[in-house]
Amino acid sequence: MAIRGGRTQESGGTSRLYPVIMAGGSGTRFWPLSRHLFPKQLLRIGGEDTLIRQTMRRVLGCAPARNVLISTNGLQAELIRVQLADWKDDIKDNYVLEPEGRNTAPAIALAAIEILARNPDGLMLVVPADHVVTGQRAFEAAVSLAARLAEEDYLVTFGIKPIRPETGYGYIKPNGKAVLGRLGGLCGYRVRQFVEKPDAATAVRYLKSGSYYWNSGMFVWKAATILEEIRRNQPALAKVMDRIQHLKASGAPTSLIDDVYRGAVSLSIDNGVMERSSKAAMVPVSFRWSDVGSWGSLDEVARKNRAGNILNGRVVDLDSTDSIVYADRRVVATIGLKDMVVVDTPDATLVCPKSRAQDVKKVVEILRQQGAPEHLEHVTVQRPWGSYTVLEEGPGFKVKRVTVNPGGRLSLQLHHKRSEHWVVIAGRARVTRGEEIFDLRVGQSTAIPVETPHRLENPGHETLHIIEVQNGSYLGEDDIVRFKDDYGRKVERS
Amino acid sequence: MAIRGGRTQESGGTSRLYPVIMAGGSGTRFWPLSRHLFPKQLLRIGGEDTLIRQTMRRVLGCAPARNVLISTNGLQAELIRVQLADWKDDIKDNYVLEPEGRNTAPAIALAAIEILARNPDGLMLVVPADHVVTGQRAFEAAVSLAARLAEEDYLVTFGIKPIRPETGYGYIKPNGKAVLGRLGGLCGYRVRQFVEKPDAATAVRYLKSGSYYWNSGMFVWKAATILEEIRRNQPALAKVMDRIQHLKASGAPTSLIDDVYRGAVSLSIDNGVMERSSKAAMVPVSFRWSDVGSWGSLDEVARKNRAGNILNGRVVDLDSTDSIVYADRRVVATIGLKDMVVVDTPDATLVCPKSRAQDVKKVVEILRQQGAPEHLEHVTVQRPWGSYTVLEEGPGFKVKRVTVNPGGRLSLQLHHKRSEHWVVIAGRARVTRGEEIFDLRVGQSTAIPVETPHRLENPGHETLHIIEVQNGSYLGEDDIVRFKDDYGRKVERS
Repeated sequence: MAIRGGRTQESGGTSRLYPVIMAGGSGTRFWPLSRHLFPKQLLRIGGEDTLIRQTMRRVLGCAPARNVLISTNGLQAELIRVQLADWKDDIKDNYVLEPEGRNTAPAIALAAIEILARNPDGLMLVVPADHVVTGQRAFEAAVSLAARLAEEDYLVTFGIKPIRPETGYGYIKPNGKAVLGRLGGLCGYRVRQFVEKPDAATAVRYLKSGSYYWNSGMFVWKAATILEEIRRNQPALAKVMDRIQHLKASGAPTSLIDDVYRGAVSLSIDNGVMERSSKAAMVPVSFRWSDVGSWGSLDEVARKNRAGNILNGRVVDLDSTDSIVYADRRVVATIGLKDMVVVDTPDATLVCPKSRAQDVKKVVEILRQQGAPEHLEHVTVQRPWGSYTVLEEGPGFKVKRVTVNPGGRLSLQLHHKRSEHWVVIAGRARVTRGEEIFDLRVGQSTAIPVETPHRLENPGHETLHIIEVQNGSYLGEDDIVRFKDDYGRKVERS
Repeated sequence: MAIRGGRTQESGGTSRLYPVIMAGGSGTRFWPLSRHLFPKQLLRIGGEDTLIRQTMRRVLGCAPARNVLISTNGLQAELIRVQLADWKDDIKDNYVLEPEGRNTAPAIALAAIEILARNPDGLMLVVPADHVVTGQRAFEAAVSLAARLAEEDYLVTFGIKPIRPETGYGYIKPNGKAVLGRLGGLCGYRVRQFVEKPDAATAVRYLKSGSYYWNSGMFVWKAATILEEIRRNQPALAKVMDRIQHLKASGAPTSLIDDVYRGAVSLSIDNGVMERSSKAAMVPVSFRWSDVGSWGSLDEVARKNRAGNILNGRVVDLDSTDSIVYADRRVVATIGLKDMVVVDTPDATLVCPKSRAQDVKKVVEILRQQGAPEHLEHVTVQRPWGSYTVLEEGPGFKVKRVTVNPGGRLSLQLHHKRSEHWVVIAGRARVTRGEEIFDLRVGQSTAIPVETPHRLENPGHETLHIIEVQNGSYLGEDDIVRFKDDYGRKVERS
C-alpha cells in the first residue's frame, strides 16, 4: 500500500505518516487474563498474536517501522519492548512515555510534538493498541483516504457501521451531503454531529436509521493541525504543551518535562477537541472492527464451536452453549453452562454470565482496595531476558521458575535480605557468584548467599530453566541492587 | 450412652458392639475436591473435621475405640490411618481390607467374620464413613433401640424421614402395625417393603404419604445373624466367606485370602440380603442426616449467607444467589450466579448448575479415560510422616514442597532415575546421604545424587518444610527402593 496523494512515498508506506500506537491502557476489563500491569494489548485475542503485535503489523502496511511511535507509560514500556522486539532497532527511540495517565488528549499532544520535531509536515495515524481489525486492505485504503483529507487540515476519524444497538460507544453522524473526497468505494464526509453513549432506545433508533456510525477511536490528522485545534479548543492544555515543547527543544531533563505533564488536565481527544472542532471529518470504513471491550465481546472476534462456545485450553465440557471458557494450566470442567464466562488463570478465576461481564472492573476495584496482588500482575512476569513464574510463596520463602532466553543475561545484582538457591532443570546456566564464574548443567545447583553479587546468564542455544528458592526476611522484587544491566535499567554508579 | 438391654456394659459404650466404618468409597461425586485416591470421607463437610473423623467420634458414643473396625482397601488405608491417628493404638489391627471393591455385601461379610472371631455374640453397627449426622444423642438412642432388636436376630436399618421428593435413594415402607420395640420416643418396626430408587412422580407420592423412609445405609445386627442371612439368601457368597473364615482360622497368608475374596460377586447388602430377608426391621430416626451425595446436597449441611450462598476461601462475589463457591488457594470472582456450583482447586476447576451436579461423575470418567491425573489424586498428597505438594512438573523435572511433622521421618530410600535437591524453608532437617548424617537449617541445601541412599527426618518441634527439586529421565513415585520405614510400608529385604 502507498498513500496516494502523499508527497513522499516508499515501499511499506509513506515516510511522512507516523502511526501512534496508544498503548497506555490498564487491564481491568479482561481480568483475570489481563492485569493492571498486563493489559489487554498483551493478550492473544482474535488471532495467533498479541493485540499490540497485530496492531504493529497493521500499521506497517501504511508506514515504515522507524515512524511508529508507542504512546505508553514507564510501567508498561518494558513489556511492550519485549512484545515489539522484532522491530527494536527501528523503534528503540520511539517510546513517548506519560509519567501519569491523563487520557487521550494530552498523550496525543505529546506524540504530536514528537512528530513535529521529526517532520513539520508529519501526518499522524492514531490507533489503539488493543483493538481487533479484520481486513488489512480495507484498513490501508481507509488510511489512504483519511491521509488525503488530513492533508487538507481535516481531523479524520474512522466510523464503524453499527451491527447491534450498542450503548457503550459514542456515535457519529456524518453530513452525507458534504463529501470531502473519495477513494475506490470509500467516501469521506464532514461530521454533522458527535453523540455521547446513547440509552438503549436511542441506540436502537441509531441502528435502524443507518445514518449513525460508531466512533472507533482511530484518527488521522497532521501533527500541526491537531496541535492547532488543541490550542483553539483547549487553551490550558495548549499552554502545558507549549512549555513541554520548549523544554524538549532546550534539552531539559525528563523529570522536569514529566512534572509539567502532570499539570495537564485529564481529557479525551473526543470530548476535548473532535466534538468542538469545525474540521472534524469521518471515513466510514469497510473493515471489521471490535474494541473487544469485555469478555462478552469475544463473540465478535473469536471462533466458536457448533454449540456456540469459545473453549481454550484443557476444557472438559458437557452440554454447554454460547459460553466462553479459558483454561490456562489447570483442567476446567464445565457442565450445562449457558451464556457464561469462565476464566481460569494460575492465581485467579472468574465466573459470570456474559451479561455481567462489564462488572469485572468492579471485582478488580475490590481487589485493588484489598491490596490483593491479583489485580496487579500475573504470577508469570515477562522480563527483557525471559520470564519468571512464582510457583509458591509463604513466610520467609518464595519459589520461582525462571526462564532465560538464549543469549539472555540478568543484571549483575545483589540482595540485602535474601539468599537464593538455583537448580538447573533445562538448558545450561552461566553463573557469576562473587569472584567466581562457572557453568551449571541440568541437575546441578548453586547457592547465592545474602549480599553476594551474582549474575545468571544463558550461554546456550536453548532456553534455560532454573528453579530458584529464595529465603529471607524480606522477598520483595525491590530488594535488588543492580551493578550492570544489558537492558538499560537503572544501575548503581560507583 | 450405654446400650440398654445389652449384656455387658461399660463407659463409652458396650464392648459387645463393634462399629464398622465403611470407608472404601471412591471420590467421583465431589470432584475436584474429592479424587479417586482422596474420597469424600476425607473432606471437611458439615463440620470442622473430616467426615471420617466425625464418623469415628460419633460411633465412640456407642462403643470403645478398640472395637471400631475400618472396612477399606489398601490404597486408602494409609490416608485413613493418618486421619485416625488419635486412636491409632486402639485400632491399629482393626483394618479390614478388601483387595478389590465388591460392593457392600462382601465387605460387610468380611467384617462380620472378623467380629465373630473376636466375640461370637458380637453386634455390628455398620456406618458409612462419609455421611453427615446431626444430633449425637438421637443417634445413640437409635443405636440403642436397634441393638435391642438385633439381639432378637433382626437386621435393623435406620429410616430417614424424607424432606424432598428425592429420586436418588431407595425407600423403605415399615409395617406400622408390627411394632418390635420402643425406646423413649423411638419405635422399631418390621419392614413391609423395600423400594428401588423411584421416578419423580412416585417420589412425590412417597413424600406426601408420610409412610415411606429413606434407606440411610446404616445397619445394626449380630455378626452371626448377618452371616446366616447371607448363607440363606446368597449361597455363592456364603461359600466364598466360609473359605475365607477357614483360611483365616488356619493362619493362611493374606495373599491367598485376597485371591479367594476376588472370587466373590459384587453385591450390595440391600439388594443381596435386606430386601430378601424376613428379619428386616427399621427404626425411624430423629437425627438429621445427609449422605452428601453431590455438590448440590451441601445445601442440607453447610451454613449459607443471607443470599443463600455457601462461600469458602477467597471468594469475591457480586450479587450471586443460592450458589456454592469453593476457592482453595486462588481468588475466585463470581458475579450474578444463580444456583451454580464453582469449585476451584490447585489443579482442576468445576463450574456447573446445581441441577447438573450429578453429572460430575461423567467428567471424572472422561478424565479417567484420558489418563488425566486430575481424576486420581490432588497435587497435595498426605503421607504418614507429613505431606507433599507438587508445585510444578515438566519434562525432566518436578518441584515439590515437602512437609515433615515433628519427629516424622521418611523411609531410608534411593531412586534409580532421579537426583534430588533439598532446600530448607522452615524448621530443621536431619539428612542421611550415603554414609553421612547432617542437619540443615533454613536457607541451607543439599543434593542427593541418583542411586544414593538417603533419608529426610524432622528432629525438631516445629514442622519442617523443604523445597525439593527432582531431575531425571523418570520421575514417578514408584521409582523408590525402601530399606527402612517407620510406618510399616514394604521395604527391601537383604
